[in-house]
Amino acid sequence: MESFADVKYVLDTIWLLISGSLVMWMAAGFAMLEAGLVRTKNTTAILTKNITLYALACVAFYVVGYDFMYGSGNSFIGSGFLTSSAADGDHSGLSDFFFQVVFVATAASIVSGTVAERIKFWPFMAFVLVLSAVIYPIQGHWTWGGTALGGWIDGFSDFAGSTIVHSVGGWAALAGALLLGARKGKYSKDGKINPIPGANLPLATIGTFILWLGWFGFNGGSQLALGSKADANAISSVIANTNMAACGGALIAMILTQLLYKKVDLTMVLNGALAGLVAITAGPDYPSMGLAIVIGAIGGVLVVFAVPFFDKLKIDDPVGALSVHLVNGIWGTLAVGIFNPDVSLLAQIKGIAVIGVFVFTSSLIVWAILKITFGIRISEELEYEGVDTHEFGLRAYPEFTDSMSTTTGSLGSTVTRRAGQVDAKFVTNN
Amino acid sequence: MESFADVKYVLDTIWLLISGSLVMWMAAGFAMLEAGLVRTKNTTAILTKNITLYALACVAFYVVGYDFMYGSGNSFIGSGFLTSSAADGDHSGLSDFFFQVVFVATAASIVSGTVAERIKFWPFMAFVLVLSAVIYPIQGHWTWGGTALGGWIDGFSDFAGSTIVHSVGGWAALAGALLLGARKGKYSKDGKINPIPGANLPLATIGTFILWLGWFGFNGGSQLALGSKADANAISSVIANTNMAACGGALIAMILTQLLYKKVDLTMVLNGALAGLVAITAGPDYPSMGLAIVIGAIGGVLVVFAVPFFDKLKIDDPVGALSVHLVNGIWGTLAVGIFNPDVSLLAQIKGIAVIGVFVFTSSLIVWAILKITFGIRISEELEYEGVDTHEFGLRAYPEFTDSMSTTTGSLGSTVTRRAGQVDAKFVTNN
Amino acid sequence: MESFADVKYVLDTIWLLISGSLVMWMAAGFAMLEAGLVRTKNTTAILTKNITLYALACVAFYVVGYDFMYGSGNSFIGSGFLTSSAADGDHSGLSDFFFQVVFVATAASIVSGTVAERIKFWPFMAFVLVLSAVIYPIQGHWTWGGTALGGWIDGFSDFAGSTIVHSVGGWAALAGALLLGARKGKYSKDGKINPIPGANLPLATIGTFILWLGWFGFNGGSQLALGSKADANAISSVIANTNMAACGGALIAMILTQLLYKKVDLTMVLNGALAGLVAITAGPDYPSMGLAIVIGAIGGVLVVFAVPFFDKLKIDDPVGALSVHLVNGIWGTLAVGIFNPDVSLLAQIKGIAVIGVFVFTSSLIVWAILKITFGIRISEELEYEGVDTHEFGLRAYPEFTDSMSTTTGSLGSTVTRRAGQVDAKFVTNN
Repeated sequence: MESFADVKYVLDTIWLLISGSLVMWMAAGFAMLEAGLVRTKNTTAILTKNITLYALACVAFYVVGYDFMYGSGNSFIGSGFLTSSAADGDHSGLSDFFFQVVFVATAASIVSGTVAERIKFWPFMAFVLVLSAVIYPIQGHWTWGGTALGGWIDGFSDFAGSTIVHSVGGWAALAGALLLGARKGKYSKDGKINPIPGANLPLATIGTFILWLGWFGFNGGSQLALGSKADANAISSVIANTNMAACGGALIAMILTQLLYKKVDLTMVLNGALAGLVAITAGPDYPSMGLAIVIGAIGGVLVVFAVPFFDKLKIDDPVGALSVHLVNGIWGTLAVGIFNPDVSLLAQIKGIAVIGVFVFTSSLIVWAILKITFGIRISEELEYEGVDTHEFGLRAYPEFTDSMSTTTGSLGSTVTRRAGQVDAKFVTNN
Repeated sequence: MESFADVKYVLDTIWLLISGSLVMWMAAGFAMLEAGLVRTKNTTAILTKNITLYALACVAFYVVGYDFMYGSGNSFIGSGFLTSSAADGDHSGLSDFFFQVVFVATAASIVSGTVAERIKFWPFMAFVLVLSAVIYPIQGHWTWGGTALGGWIDGFSDFAGSTIVHSVGGWAALAGALLLGARKGKYSKDGKINPIPGANLPLATIGTFILWLGWFGFNGGSQLALGSKADANAISSVIANTNMAACGGALIAMILTQLLYKKVDLTMVLNGALAGLVAITAGPDYPSMGLAIVIGAIGGVLVVFAVPFFDKLKIDDPVGALSVHLVNGIWGTLAVGIFNPDVSLLAQIKGIAVIGVFVFTSSLIVWAILKITFGIRISEELEYEGVDTHEFGLRAYPEFTDSMSTTTGSLGSTVTRRAGQVDAKFVTNN
Repeated sequence: MESFADVKYVLDTIWLLISGSLVMWMAAGFAMLEAGLVRTKNTTAILTKNITLYALACVAFYVVGYDFMYGSGNSFIGSGFLTSSAADGDHSGLSDFFFQVVFVATAASIVSGTVAERIKFWPFMAFVLVLSAVIYPIQGHWTWGGTALGGWIDGFSDFAGSTIVHSVGGWAALAGALLLGARKGKYSKDGKINPIPGANLPLATIGTFILWLGWFGFNGGSQLALGSKADANAISSVIANTNMAACGGALIAMILTQLLYKKVDLTMVLNGALAGLVAITAGPDYPSMGLAIVIGAIGGVLVVFAVPFFDKLKIDDPVGALSVHLVNGIWGTLAVGIFNPDVSLLAQIKGIAVIGVFVFTSSLIVWAILKITFGIRISEELEYEGVDTHEFGLRAYPEFTDSMSTTTGSLGSTVTRRAGQVDAKFVTNN
């Protein structure tokens, strides 16, 4: 270490590594959040998907995704192979790769929540592969890759990815949910919407806290530098605002559910906090903390109304991922156009629309191909029994849930199959 | 980055942000610890309180608390609004705010544990608001705010808050517990103390580990600077000692419960570790690691005897928060006066007493006003049924606990209500 | 801060402290992983062991272990007492101690998984004491202590401890497993191997994610410096490779279990990720990310075959720790000799063999002494009932598992004892 340039290089690099580690930790957050909000009979499945999708997204992004996103190429797609464009500059190229690769899994994790409890495992993984290797990197090439899609979305501003990460995951999830259909028993023929309660709320809560913590890296690391007073000040503002937006979202969800339902609803509070986090992500650097609270609180309002709205449309989303990541990804990106005088609202709308159309359409095509070829939905019997016993061979809580159907193992004939609470609805309402 | 002063500014700032993130993570630790130590029927409630209290504490501290604590004002209370006193100096002002704001939630989290399983939600939140916005900042103004209460508590030394954070939470909790009374069934008329086992010990354990990790930021960040060799050495000592004190507390609890009860008691080991952490917090910078182990071990001894002591007084504390945070907050602060030659024991006693009297009295007044106006205790029926089903509408583990009373939903009439283990005691002993 | 040497000192120090904190966090990972993979009736026991072993390992390493490892002494063992050899140099001596002390607990945690569900608590703790104070430090003195055992293992290269930490834990565990024997009911007289499913797979999953995150500190911190561009580049490579190796291990386990068993096995995926992490640990600094994926993937293959292999040998390992840490500790160390042109494969083999023989033999002697004197295995009745109720007095999930035998408390006579799923096997197969 012989110069201030060296100091800057080291600080920028280590900040990307620390932030990237926190974003990797978000994979655990998604896994716990989703495992807490599905039923016990599909818990092993969601755990398995959350860890394997992370691994697959990393490898796919290493092989082609990073270069599709950051390689030179043309204004539509970058070129290269095996992360060849990760060069050292102001900071280590590998630290940049590490920070970017963990973002990809975030987008994929959003999808896994929405399609939970009814998706086939291998077609899901195939979708994750395409999303991580192709769809996500291409739209990232237009934005963080710096081409502005040949000028089409010039001026579009998304600091850490309300649109580029969260709404992208949301659009991909929406396409999947539309082609998959709702879980059996969720929507009765008489129009009734049947709540299917999550099996383990402490898990959902620790998942939310993990995501909240990880978001300090997600947004804080997106400054991409630490080596100056200006960077340190910016990161301070980013992290303080990120925290405050989550607080705003959680508090407004607490108040609204009390007013609307006469009960504070924990799952809405959790999703309210996450909504605030998604909403601030497009611009955590410019607002005052007061404005950050407002942006997050509007996110919380949106989530409280979006969850029943999607249910009204019979778009089944077991964990509320569309309400959190798609709706608030859009809101957060618009908010930058509204509140940041340096950013044009029109540019924001153009960016949201272009990326939304591209990701939704391409995802719909991929899901449709998978549906036609392999099928994407588990059998009705499997859905009744739960995927864990048959497709995964392991129950998540074998000693707690003797009222659920049993494993496929040697004990199959001796254990009585009794329908649980939700399964009863499944049977009677369809 | 053009000077060593810049390097110092960046390092100080990022250390506050990293440490503050670790302290934020402690909110997850408290949530899991408390969720693991209550019964399933009140688990949704404790989870909800732990996330909403964090959000409320942050917003309240942003609006007035930070300025009441650090604004100029007079020697009793600071002045200002919307964190206006958070100015850049040796480090970013917002990084200082972020590090301080997460401490407030710690104090509030301590209260939530002690009053668990019988407090009404909204009055609890009202108390959190007053604690975070007024009570905590005022006593903080006397100490970390630097006024020494007009000289009254000159020389009082509390590095990271054994008194200023932990005993403050403890005094506030004690006041609440006294006005609330014990959980039904905890103390029989014949004087018997009925253990009410926590429902999920892995949660309590991960909560403890989270707190342990977070404490490296809690104490390490309290150095408030990283930009010199002296700071780096001090932080090394602080973190090593913090770890060792926790080890001492855990080990002595392990040994003592074996000697006293012929069984190693996991909940005591967890509280022993936390006791060690609280005890070292007032002075983690000066001792040798050997002395840190001793200070932590004495903390562990205190917790093993304090838990039955509070039970003897019929002060019901479901998670042992008084034994951990109040008793050891006092012990840790005294220890600095005993072992650190630069600190006067008398000053420590004066500080403990002045802060204790102020916080306990003001908390008692607030709790009393809440009790008279809205009431602070849930109905006896709700306590029997558990708050989750009626006040929160969501059971934490709906598929695991069919022996508990059911949700308020459509299944109410078909599911038999059976009294569980503890509920049986509730009925028979009162 | 007045010179670049000061900047380097501060950066080296803080990186060791941050990395060490992440490694401490791995203790929580082991606790959750193991708690998720045992049965509910032995869950309190495994939680207790995981937190007390960490505490004991830290104290033992403080008192003598650190000096046995890093003190001058002779080429076999270092000398000193109370960490007297922890001197400030390029970084704070205490930061070095903190980083090293948390590694010891990792080795001990590996043992606790393998001997779970049948080991007596106090003899286990006695073994941990010897391992942490004597066995681990002695072999560490030969390697990281720099003596090369008087030249015998010159050229042996183990960056972060595939051999020095992970296989050491593995050898110690293997010795214990051999002297303990298998859990009752695991291996039938007719040669059948009965799976004993873990009770809580979300816990096992979060445990794996915690370990994965912690490993960024485990390997990244092992660079032992941050204060230069070269260090920052090396750490970037180390962390990126560590992540990629885990991905490789998880993905190959996913594919292999599908091919072999027609079902993706979550516990194998988790162990596959951990296998990849162990495998890359000996040399995360030199390979390309592509090679890191391959090294991790081979680790995943090994774990998928090693688990049934140990079962065939009737070496019972409830969590698969031998397959992960011993087998892949060896593989990872060999891989450096194979792929890194600067390292001799022969030196790697010599190091593995010398350390393996020393640790296995000395562990076997210690376990044998404990077996002869105090006994190391719980009684058959206790094994049937579970250690939690009798030895620890607390059930981990008292409200979830009413089909398990009850606590020893006042309710003992009124609660029916019913044999659970696995207990039935225990009875019928023996």
